Amino acid sequence: MSFERVAVIGLGLLGGSIGLAVQKHLPRVRTIGFDADAGVRERARERGLVHEVLDDPVEAVRQADLVVLCVPVGAMRLAAAAVAPGLSADVVVSDVGSAKQRVSRALAETLPGHTVIPAHPVAGTERSGPDAGFASLFAARWCILTPPDGAPEDKVAALTAFWQALGSTVEVMDAGHHDMVLAVTSHIPHLVAYTIVGTASDLEEVTRSEVIKYSAGGFRDFTRIAASDPTMWRDVFLHNKDAVLEMMDRFMGDLEAMRSAIRAEDGEAMFDLFTRTRAIRRGIVEQGQDDARPDFGRADHGKDTA
Amino acid sequence: MSFERVAVIGLGLLGGSIGLAVQKHLPRVRTIGFDADAGVRERARERGLVHEVLDDPVEAVRQADLVVLCVPVGAMRLAAAAVAPGLSADVVVSDVGSAKQRVSRALAETLPGHTVIPAHPVAGTERSGPDAGFASLFAARWCILTPPDGAPEDKVAALTAFWQALGSTVEVMDAGHHDMVLAVTSHIPHLVAYTIVGTASDLEEVTRSEVIKYSAGGFRDFTRIAASDPTMWRDVFLHNKDAVLEMMDRFMGDLEAMRSAIRAEDGEAMFDLFTRTRAIRRGIVEQGQDDARPDFGRADHGKDTA
Repeated sequence: MSFERVAVIGLGLLGGSIGLAVQKHLPRVRTIGFDADAGVRERARERGLVHEVLDDPVEAVRQADLVVLCVPVGAMRLAAAAVAPGLSADVVVSDVGSAKQRVSRALAETLPGHTVIPAHPVAGTERSGPDAGFASLFAARWCILTPPDGAPEDKVAALTAFWQALGSTVEVMDAGHHDMVLAVTSHIPHLVAYTIVGTASDLEEVTRSEVIKYSAGGFRDFTRIAASDPTMWRDVFLHNKDAVLEMMDRFMGDLEAMRSAIRAEDGEAMFDLFTRTRAIRRGIVEQGQDDARPDFGRADHGKDTA
Repeated sequence: MSFERVAVIGLGLLGGSIGLAVQKHLPRVRTIGFDADAGVRERARERGLVHEVLDDPVEAVRQADLVVLCVPVGAMRLAAAAVAPGLSADVVVSDVGSAKQRVSRALAETLPGHTVIPAHPVAGTERSGPDAGFASLFAARWCILTPPDGAPEDKVAALTAFWQALGSTVEVMDAGHHDMVLAVTSHIPHLVAYTIVGTASDLEEVTRSEVIKYSAGGFRDFTRIAASDPTMWRDVFLHNKDAVLEMMDRFMGDLEAMRSAIRAEDGEAMFDLFTRTRAIRRGIVEQGQDDARPDFGRADHGKDTA
């Protein structure tokens, strides 16, 4: 089986990118979209994010064989309830949320009798809204599926093929493990970035204008992800609370250890950590998950390099 | 006055970039270089980082009217002592260190009777060594001078003009204030990045390969600066200990507050912080201190955007 009619609920960065990517890579698939915000619907029509934008969520999912919920994780239950009356019996309902255990439960409870296969494309930028999406967002990225026990194999295979067609490599894992992995690789980094940018903007000794001026010393890398959508991220922390708190404890413990090392002027402990961390960077670049150019190629630094 | 003969001591990312930038922007200035590592000297000759690479630091600075020490801050005193016998009476000795109070003191003590004007170009990449430098590193970046009380005005003006010629905007400030500003905008971000990458690589529940795979969710932004030169950064934390510890306390306090907010499921506190932090990002992009393209333009995401 493969999908012929895909409904995208929520037309921001992720939903818009799915619509564009499907139109590019799966030209025979019909795409229908809905967003709760009339202004977003209008902009989605102008940009052609999907073939057709409807004003009614129930109509948007009618006859769809795949419905992808692309709303903040805190709004998943509501979005599922809103489309429920229009769902066909055979439909696969999926999502793109960054926290999977609670979302899976919410969707299963809201849509009893329907096939729910949660998914999480590990891709994004700091932009949000209907102008942010682009067709190549998922290219060379991972997409994690967390099918519940007993999910029909043919439907899992169809969803896998769908994401592969959009350029992603698909991995299947348990929702609990997903939440732990993403707490480390995504949620804690965002939380730390938001916090440090907040700390810097609250200082009295150092003005905000100084922070901006001298941000090229490292700070600016944090501000990119700290510019991400606030609603989406609030919801992530509320819905992946346990794993986030656990990872945060580890991180804060390690930070305490570094503070002690600085206090004790223990150069060896610092040098040891600063050397170990290079290996991870190398792995990320080698596996194509980041741009190898120095400084991310900012300002085309490469130009003058020998 | 302007400089005619510039000696660069240390031919890594910063020293090499100064050599290349001077050759590009100040073609009448003669550049001489030295590095304590014979392999680096050889590579510097091959790349033409300076006009002439000498094997003896004393010879390298002879007749120079500007000597720039481009070594880790912990090696500044040694580098100053090594060149001292060759310095002419009129020379200006400067540096590029990321911590200024202790370095200024070390240089003044090591070079009594000489004019020392510490400097810090706020520019860099995660690369290090003689292959890392490029002529445009300082373009559109800030360079902070921290002249001690009583520094000759004409020499401060000459050093200012020198950095302006390399493309930088020069700011003069007190060394103590510099150290506080840089603790926030550079040192703490590096420490946090190093620590979080260390935390992630020590986990048992999540494998290193998973951390690498799913790094596009935010983590990879931290790994770039956590790949910076370990010696340089160990020295920065040892030499800017007080300001770093003070800023670290603030940051850790704010992180505690976020942990409490997550525990209490206080969505409002999170949303409030996540919204405030966007303004700083906007300022950084507007003032040309970062790349405005989403995701730093990684993988040319812009291509598909409408």
